Amino acid sequence: MVLLAWKISRSRSGLCPRRPEQVLVRMSAASLNFRDLLTGKGAYNPRQPLPLIPGSDGVGEVVALGAGVTRVKMGQRVGTCFCQGWVAGPPTRERLSNTLGGPLDGTLAQYMVLDQQGVVALPGHLTNEQAATLTCAALTAWTALVTEGQLKAGSWVLLQGTGGVSIFALQLARLLGARVIITSSSHEKLARARELGAEHTINYLEEPRWGKKARQLTGGRGVDQVVEVGGADTLAQSLSAVAVGGQISLIGVLSGVKSSVLLTQILMQYVRVQGILVGNRDGFEAMNRAVAASGLKPVVDRVFGLEDTAEALAYMASGKHLGKVCIKM
Amino acid sequence: MVLLAWKISRSRSGLCPRRPEQVLVRMSAASLNFRDLLTGKGAYNPRQPLPLIPGSDGVGEVVALGAGVTRVKMGQRVGTCFCQGWVAGPPTRERLSNTLGGPLDGTLAQYMVLDQQGVVALPGHLTNEQAATLTCAALTAWTALVTEGQLKAGSWVLLQGTGGVSIFALQLARLLGARVIITSSSHEKLARARELGAEHTINYLEEPRWGKKARQLTGGRGVDQVVEVGGADTLAQSLSAVAVGGQISLIGVLSGVKSSVLLTQILMQYVRVQGILVGNRDGFEAMNRAVAASGLKPVVDRVFGLEDTAEALAYMASGKHLGKVCIKM
Amino acid sequence: MVLLAWKISRSRSGLCPRRPEQVLVRMSAASLNFRDLLTGKGAYNPRQPLPLIPGSDGVGEVVALGAGVTRVKMGQRVGTCFCQGWVAGPPTRERLSNTLGGPLDGTLAQYMVLDQQGVVALPGHLTNEQAATLTCAALTAWTALVTEGQLKAGSWVLLQGTGGVSIFALQLARLLGARVIITSSSHEKLARARELGAEHTINYLEEPRWGKKARQLTGGRGVDQVVEVGGADTLAQSLSAVAVGGQISLIGVLSGVKSSVLLTQILMQYVRVQGILVGNRDGFEAMNRAVAASGLKPVVDRVFGLEDTAEALAYMASGKHLGKVCIKM
Amino acid sequence: MVLLAWKISRSRSGLCPRRPEQVLVRMSAASLNFRDLLTGKGAYNPRQPLPLIPGSDGVGEVVALGAGVTRVKMGQRVGTCFCQGWVAGPPTRERLSNTLGGPLDGTLAQYMVLDQQGVVALPGHLTNEQAATLTCAALTAWTALVTEGQLKAGSWVLLQGTGGVSIFALQLARLLGARVIITSSSHEKLARARELGAEHTINYLEEPRWGKKARQLTGGRGVDQVVEVGGADTLAQSLSAVAVGGQISLIGVLSGVKSSVLLTQILMQYVRVQGILVGNRDGFEAMNRAVAASGLKPVVDRVFGLEDTAEALAYMASGKHLGKVCIKM
Repeated sequence: MVLLAWKISRSRSGLCPRRPEQVLVRMSAASLNFRDLLTGKGAYNPRQPLPLIPGSDGVGEVVALGAGVTRVKMGQRVGTCFCQGWVAGPPTRERLSNTLGGPLDGTLAQYMVLDQQGVVALPGHLTNEQAATLTCAALTAWTALVTEGQLKAGSWVLLQGTGGVSIFALQLARLLGARVIITSSSHEKLARARELGAEHTINYLEEPRWGKKARQLTGGRGVDQVVEVGGADTLAQSLSAVAVGGQISLIGVLSGVKSSVLLTQILMQYVRVQGILVGNRDGFEAMNRAVAASGLKPVVDRVFGLEDTAEALAYMASGKHLGKVCIKM
Repeated sequence: MVLLAWKISRSRSGLCPRRPEQVLVRMSAASLNFRDLLTGKGAYNPRQPLPLIPGSDGVGEVVALGAGVTRVKMGQRVGTCFCQGWVAGPPTRERLSNTLGGPLDGTLAQYMVLDQQGVVALPGHLTNEQAATLTCAALTAWTALVTEGQLKAGSWVLLQGTGGVSIFALQLARLLGARVIITSSSHEKLARARELGAEHTINYLEEPRWGKKARQLTGGRGVDQVVEVGGADTLAQSLSAVAVGGQISLIGVLSGVKSSVLLTQILMQYVRVQGILVGNRDGFEAMNRAVAASGLKPVVDRVFGLEDTAEALAYMASGKHLGKVCIKM
Repeated sequence: MVLLAWKISRSRSGLCPRRPEQVLVRMSAASLNFRDLLTGKGAYNPRQPLPLIPGSDGVGEVVALGAGVTRVKMGQRVGTCFCQGWVAGPPTRERLSNTLGGPLDGTLAQYMVLDQQGVVALPGHLTNEQAATLTCAALTAWTALVTEGQLKAGSWVLLQGTGGVSIFALQLARLLGARVIITSSSHEKLARARELGAEHTINYLEEPRWGKKARQLTGGRGVDQVVEVGGADTLAQSLSAVAVGGQISLIGVLSGVKSSVLLTQILMQYVRVQGILVGNRDGFEAMNRAVAASGLKPVVDRVFGLEDTAEALAYMASGKHLGKVCIKM
Repeated sequence: MVLLAWKISRSRSGLCPRRPEQVLVRMSAASLNFRDLLTGKGAYNPRQPLPLIPGSDGVGEVVALGAGVTRVKMGQRVGTCFCQGWVAGPPTRERLSNTLGGPLDGTLAQYMVLDQQGVVALPGHLTNEQAATLTCAALTAWTALVTEGQLKAGSWVLLQGTGGVSIFALQLARLLGARVIITSSSHEKLARARELGAEHTINYLEEPRWGKKARQLTGGRGVDQVVEVGGADTLAQSLSAVAVGGQISLIGVLSGVKSSVLLTQILMQYVRVQGILVGNRDGFEAMNRAVAASGLKPVVDRVFGLEDTAEALAYMASGKHLGKVCIKM
């Protein structure tokens, strides 16, 4: 993997809020997403100019305020929003355009200057590393299950693998009273998922038709929601698993981007395939209230120093982790 | 209180499914609602002819099937739907018209003949008495919080008193990850509510302005939802408590039916006052999935024999109970 | 095309409501759907036993009533519901299972016995043939645009071709105040579509990248909704046309069932692909209120006699029609 | 009526965008709302410091841009948003707090400095005076009917009187394919309402029980939505008129703020009473797309000069108008 030529500002010199609505944040932690790997390779958006500071998820302390700032206070701990301009409401091209870690410089930095509208308060019971995992993975899971899926207690959710989004989806689904089936190639990871509340686990190496298996585990009715992280190679199984009228939230394409889908399954089962791109600030804040009320703790697999970011990215690429890989500044 | 002249069929003789879609159910338990008190007095619907078999909530065993029955099996335990003709979708006059315990004969009977569309399967972990509490009180709470309110984890719910609907709303709100404030005039009942998961309790005798107090307990933002059971005397407090954009579900009028409401509070705070009449069968079944998945146990205050129904109604009228009062056949 | 061995009952002898909730309907008109062609070839559902009476759409007069019928009256004109058991609410496997024209015998008959729940009143200003087109094509368009799509006035809708669903979608979208772009290979049909209110037309023979063209016609923002009738060969163009946050309602697979979809377009544009299977009775009745209020007249291309059904099916297969092909009994 | 001591800036001197996201707008037209009358009397919000520049609705030309402005261009015609900080999503206390015409200075000015987020583009076919009517009255009607009410074609809407909101609700409801019943004390105004598309009109002087009458006009089913502008004296009639499951949008309290409501009608008919406070910018822009697509022209009753604002307010107070009263700069 070719790493980015970093542009990380290692000191505060020269950094200050230039606009009255901006804040200066001293970063304390970040977490990595699969997107960071792709961006570094130029594969996420080929038109993205490089070098670029990577990282979408971050936590820090407000150390300077523009004159017009009202949303946050000096010294407050804040988290970064992925879509800096998407406060609320449905997505638009404009609202999805200004995202951290590309095209905007990202969170793997010692200081960031951000608009006050682009940061949120964070649940107090979390460490900086834990809190730094919420920006993308947790909010993506929340947007899929809650904002778009309106997940009801007692419903079935099918999750794929034990990466960041899937583990958050597991924890959030449990918090909402839903039932979870999760897949992995590792019995060890499946055991950990059961500890986190998964009701059924499927080792997809042993059960290649895991979609049908998941359907059977629901008594034949099918699962109400799937959080689809695999894309090309897994969508067919998801379509086998999903109930009539169910939702497949397409949030990732880890296994490929071109999928040969049997459209009749979507049509005849009245299925909804919903693309999800992280989510808006309203959702982030609603999720934070849920996290705070429940005491939910994000699953941090491992924490690296900022200087070990390359190693951290390689570790995430290896797929050995369960939950999130973090960076401590 | 003048009790109904009962019309309870005490034997099976003459009772059988007359239509191919009907089932004969041997009743094993029922639970009482405040509505039964009003109906007995002719106060619920003055045009209701009496005598009438009271009772909307009931559980029994299917002991005979019409030729066209496909939804249930011989020997299956089923619960009664309040609105016999409201399977799914929004309410209509027609869907709200055929309700058990008036105008239709109710559940305080040894046998009932019901359309297969008017019964549901029940969570297996519940006793008959527990299961018999779900028809009205639990479904009303579910419809208010979930179907109409789309309650999100981390949101605040304000509940009034510790009657059947309020206690179910407490249990369901907790199951959904929401936070609960509840009122009562009894410190003992409030202690019990805390055991069931209430985060804050208010004794309204000590705190007559409990609406304002509830708002303070949320940090000034106000509660996201109120389940309004009192009506006339409590609505003003509910309006003080509710957040901008919040919902007050009007499910009861225990304290009176005529309320002098300050309309500007509804308008200026963008509040929704939503009348709730129990709910449809889809909601009942969705709730049952949630109850089954979570192992939630309804709070049964006391169980009376069928011959002691008058005593049971008087006990409920006294307001001494917390949760539901049941009848065992 | 191998036609079905018909089982059409040509006289009333032996036909009567056998259950108290049933009605006997003397059919006066029906309309054809592409589904009838597939069913006749055994291609719609290979497990469907044949012969079978085809036809999902039909209109007739109630000529006999079961003892328990309350929804309709003797002599009333009624239309058939496609999903006989789907009154309201979201789809379930059970609700989608009993459909006319397979697995149940269909509407190309002189008499039908139907449950009272499976018929609806029809707008009075329509001829029998016009009214007979509503069951599938019109309701599919309504479900896509309104029930699932919540189409707003001023939004853009992209329609493919000038078959029954697309022409209804055009008329309904206009009725709702939305703006329409429509495609066809025939300039003549496009001219007719403009007369019906289409704002822009695209001849896809001349403009193979009609998705991009449609996007340009909206000023670059993209269309809010697509009614996807083509499936495999058209979905890529639909994904080019749709706006961020938009919906593609998948209602047909005329061009093929296996599609190689670029999943990143769904994900990165937050697109919803919603499978649609006709819709429920609530939707049918809501649509009928809209049709009655507006005076909308379905576009009937040609009417055949019942004895010319084979010819009518062949005509529909030829693709020469615009709107619906009807059968008069 | 005691008029405000105006603070209207009559020249541009000293006015310029002080923040990079601000624009300077030379105002060309405004329209009045009942709120302006109340504010002038200190009756809208007793804590509002006076004097204040009144006016929430306005149209002008952008004549200077801050360095960070991207949403609008020099010379562009823009309209003002009532809630300057409510871009999208559900209301919150914060989002409802910064409103023009109190607490913020309003639109009855020659120049205004506004944040770029607080203005919108306007339909090109409207005159400045017509366009100036959209900010509050039209958006309130849109929010009630569409955003909260999801009005369907073919549904019934009951409107009270012929003020600004009611006339917009009439025009928008027609545009959406809905059916309208409207009340007034003037036969002349009712005739005008019929010209605008009202299907039924009721003179409430002749028909004091107009709620029951409206219900009869729908065939007994009741209206799907009421836009309640009267408040105290009209709500009882609205409750008589509304269908089971219907919505009453509470948008005004012209007849009084304290209402003695029969709560059982809300409960037993499953009615929703929804407070509406204008709406967000997303709604404004969606409505503008609908207005542009349809060519809808707001009904401007009379246009006054800025120097005749006192007269214009008095004219609005007299209730002689139908539609909106405008001010031309």
